[in-house]
Amino acid sequence: MNMPPGTRKVLQAIWKSKKPNSKAEIVRATGFSLATVTEHVETLVRSNLIIEEEMGNSTGGRRPRLLAFNHEAGYIIGIDLESTHVQVGITDLNCSVVSSKASDIDVAAGPAAVLEHIREMIYSLLDESNIEISRIKGIGMGVPGPVEYSTGLPASLPIMPGWDRYPILQFLSQHFDCACYVDNNVYTRALGERTVEGVSGTDNLIFLKIGNGIGAGIICNGQIYRGSTECAGDVGHINIGQDLLCYCGNRGCLETIAGGRAIVRRAEEIARNGQSEILAKIMATKGELSLEDFNRAVRESDPSAVELIRECGFQIGNVIAGLINFFNPSLVCIGGRVSEVGDVLLASIRQAIYHRSLPLSTRNLIIQPSLLGEKGGIIGAAVLTVDKIIEDSLKKTKEGIFSF
Amino acid sequence: MNMPPGTRKVLQAIWKSKKPNSKAEIVRATGFSLATVTEHVETLVRSNLIIEEEMGNSTGGRRPRLLAFNHEAGYIIGIDLESTHVQVGITDLNCSVVSSKASDIDVAAGPAAVLEHIREMIYSLLDESNIEISRIKGIGMGVPGPVEYSTGLPASLPIMPGWDRYPILQFLSQHFDCACYVDNNVYTRALGERTVEGVSGTDNLIFLKIGNGIGAGIICNGQIYRGSTECAGDVGHINIGQDLLCYCGNRGCLETIAGGRAIVRRAEEIARNGQSEILAKIMATKGELSLEDFNRAVRESDPSAVELIRECGFQIGNVIAGLINFFNPSLVCIGGRVSEVGDVLLASIRQAIYHRSLPLSTRNLIIQPSLLGEKGGIIGAAVLTVDKIIEDSLKKTKEGIFSF
Repeated sequence: MNMPPGTRKVLQAIWKSKKPNSKAEIVRATGFSLATVTEHVETLVRSNLIIEEEMGNSTGGRRPRLLAFNHEAGYIIGIDLESTHVQVGITDLNCSVVSSKASDIDVAAGPAAVLEHIREMIYSLLDESNIEISRIKGIGMGVPGPVEYSTGLPASLPIMPGWDRYPILQFLSQHFDCACYVDNNVYTRALGERTVEGVSGTDNLIFLKIGNGIGAGIICNGQIYRGSTECAGDVGHINIGQDLLCYCGNRGCLETIAGGRAIVRRAEEIARNGQSEILAKIMATKGELSLEDFNRAVRESDPSAVELIRECGFQIGNVIAGLINFFNPSLVCIGGRVSEVGDVLLASIRQAIYHRSLPLSTRNLIIQPSLLGEKGGIIGAAVLTVDKIIEDSLKKTKEGIFSF
Repeated sequence: MNMPPGTRKVLQAIWKSKKPNSKAEIVRATGFSLATVTEHVETLVRSNLIIEEEMGNSTGGRRPRLLAFNHEAGYIIGIDLESTHVQVGITDLNCSVVSSKASDIDVAAGPAAVLEHIREMIYSLLDESNIEISRIKGIGMGVPGPVEYSTGLPASLPIMPGWDRYPILQFLSQHFDCACYVDNNVYTRALGERTVEGVSGTDNLIFLKIGNGIGAGIICNGQIYRGSTECAGDVGHINIGQDLLCYCGNRGCLETIAGGRAIVRRAEEIARNGQSEILAKIMATKGELSLEDFNRAVRESDPSAVELIRECGFQIGNVIAGLINFFNPSLVCIGGRVSEVGDVLLASIRQAIYHRSLPLSTRNLIIQPSLLGEKGGIIGAAVLTVDKIIEDSLKKTKEGIFSF
């Protein structure tokens, strides 16, 4: 038997608040009576899904107890797949990372080989962390593109040919006896950012990932927003009116100017033209540049590199400004490998937004770098997993307790 | 006492389905048991809010009865205010227009005079229609710009100076003893379009109004989406990269090229330059052009006028294409006075969208003209009103029945 809706609603309220709750707080969050809340809380405590904590301060009389989500009731595995690398992490049920591994991958090896590699990473991580596999309650995986969420099939990963409709979810479910979920990694990262302490009240946010591709994860009314054919947020191909051919076949897509690959290509041009001493030197040694080389040149205040990243920030900010006018979010969060270049990019994005967005829509707007940083993909995948396990699949055992 | 949540949920299910329902359908829509549905239905029938209809076909045995929203239980007044004109209509509770009036207004006269004029229009409409004022259950008013929904105060109507934070809701409530609501008229129109038979399953849609200003109403997961500071959908000031000064102080806003005022200004230029015989002739007679004059020239296939409207459609379509990539709606609905020019505009908007949007996001996308046409503003305001009355304010009388 699945967990009854009322009990689940109480558990969700405690999990989503990300802090210990008094019964009065749960009453407010659920709209249930105190008697009903007490009944559900007893079930959840018996099931070891929530634990009672003594409150620090008493106002006299019997000390009220706070109810906290038992983040030690199990572990989650979060996987963040990108076109050139993958991160795998183990988190507790609060989605704090316990241990993690990263690895470069060769997309050309195809999905079967990459997934096998991920499976080995998971096993070695469990081994090193001394965590029994039976304690893993769920696995969440983010992939760099649209996913048909109900089946876990990638719908279209233009930067990863061969992955189209590959049964990732089936692979995970075959090898791991727990709840498994696959989603677009910008969606999971947006969810992760929202869940971070301090922004959990943010109901409408845009997480913008600037990597080789540029994509947005949208949280709308507190939920991941997927759109009608589950490809919302694909902002990398919005037209910025420049005459540059994109791999999608169109001209002037944002990615052709401000995506990681475009930046590297343009940095190499700068190096070849002798406009940057630093870049020319690296180029002479390695014969090519990486995004990290470029980011280093920016951090070392190379004028041509700074000029280039400012132009990218301006173009990105101009596009986001339009999306802000349309969507009116309260938070825009900037992440991805290109954003690791630092404050120069963020400042020029902000400048373009404040120049082009309507004053009413930026009145309370916060524009900030990703708070989760490079582990954001693991954390986001773990948040999705805990959310979904609580929503879908808490089962009652013979002993009358519920478990993950 | 307000209507209990369960009874309200049953009433909402019937109202939102826009058709007579069997009890089985209500069970499916609400998740309630048959016994619970039967109990709520009895209350609603006793209150005369829903009526029982005999079903056409019987499968043998006792004929099941269908339950329909009693659209004759009262009337709604819908008001659609624009910067230069206003429409007022009386609708039944299904939001079908019973009678309506339109009038040009002089914005410069200020909100007090305009609202007084609207009040007189309402009284004369009631009089001509022989409808007692006591039968009016609610009034909804759409205004051309952002509204602080909870207070009904317009937040910023740049095209209607003097209306900033004017207490419209207070005016209506003082003069009419029924539930009153004020909202941005693109939001109410989007809601109206969604409610039309045939698209009521559309959960994510963009209604684009192309009038003097250009604005979007967004329906997200079946609800009006307002955004964090209640100004979502303000797309008229998205940058299209042209060097034309807008009244907002920026350059290159979509409205400066494709809004009604911009089109008239450009049509007058065409007339002065002798590029269009038709336009030059009207200009010579009247000394100026109206949007209707321009639309007539397009309908009469004047090449320069057609070229101009095609360019507007291309610019509008290019902006919408970006919003489709971001929001991935299933329906884009085009309305407003500029759209009355007809198929040329719609065709060029479609062309730009299919050129610039990603294939996955246009796979099931419908792009269509407003189905409600010029009465859309009245209908949308009425739909908002019935929605909100059911949500907020059904009260129990001494006799134990609920009423609007």
